[in-house]
Amino acid sequence: MNINEKYMKEALKEAKKAYNKLEVPVGAIIVKDGKIIARAHNLKETKNDTTYHAEIIAIKKASKKLESWRLNGCDMYVTLEPCPMCAGALIASRINKVYIGTMDEKTGACGSVLNLLKDYKFNHCVESETGILKSECEEILKSFFKDLRKYKSTKDCN
Amino acid sequence: MNINEKYMKEALKEAKKAYNKLEVPVGAIIVKDGKIIARAHNLKETKNDTTYHAEIIAIKKASKKLESWRLNGCDMYVTLEPCPMCAGALIASRINKVYIGTMDEKTGACGSVLNLLKDYKFNHCVESETGILKSECEEILKSFFKDLRKYKSTKDCN
Repeated sequence: MNINEKYMKEALKEAKKAYNKLEVPVGAIIVKDGKIIARAHNLKETKNDTTYHAEIIAIKKASKKLESWRLNGCDMYVTLEPCPMCAGALIASRINKVYIGTMDEKTGACGSVLNLLKDYKFNHCVESETGILKSECEEILKSFFKDLRKYKSTKDCN
Repeated sequence: MNINEKYMKEALKEAKKAYNKLEVPVGAIIVKDGKIIARAHNLKETKNDTTYHAEIIAIKKASKKLESWRLNGCDMYVTLEPCPMCAGALIASRINKVYIGTMDEKTGACGSVLNLLKDYKFNHCVESETGILKSECEEILKSFFKDLRKYKSTKDCN
């Protein structure tokens, strides 16, 4: 297991926490100088707030830790391709690089629906790399939606 | 003064609060059924957190008030064109329509650099209208950056 896979494993641990809270299982961590400085998982339903995506929470935690909104020199590992809001936050926070597990064909803004990180000229450029532990990042989402369908069909029968 | 200008005046009041805190003067309000349910202004420097844009704070406040992340039926009035993060948050929160004061040629994601609201197929479509009290929304930004330059050049002399 290389270093990127090791960090993605940590993001997957966060995704599992979301799963256990009946949240779409997405996890993210932020690394600086070889240290994990922020961990977060999706809490949108729990908090009833669409800005509680794993990436946004992680960015907020890292900013608090570093006492700066500038996250230059920081890398994010996230299990699912960021949506436009989160990709925009990566640019605005000046994150160095984002490592992505699996892609999101419906709302992904780092190569799927569009690529905010590469196709436009903003004041900061975020590097990206995709497919880190892709199967595991895909599997946890598939499993979650399968469980959700099962739960909903059981509910419909009662 | 029509109803849209009246609401943009309220967003401008918020922008002025940001100005007085030495923040880039951007203000936003959210309206539902003719009532202002959230008011916010940019607090990025104060909070040392790039997610503290006026639009994101307003969305969080509205979600809290409505106890829902779904802001269907809500309109936002914002003095400056939203960046990708904020335009993405408008889509994700299912806001009905965004009324924009002036455009942001450098980072605007509702028609300037790109148009996240119109050029892509996401699961929700946000309507938009631009140029509401454009001169006033432009003027407050110009005045702020003029003051900032003056302040910086005074500092450089000391």
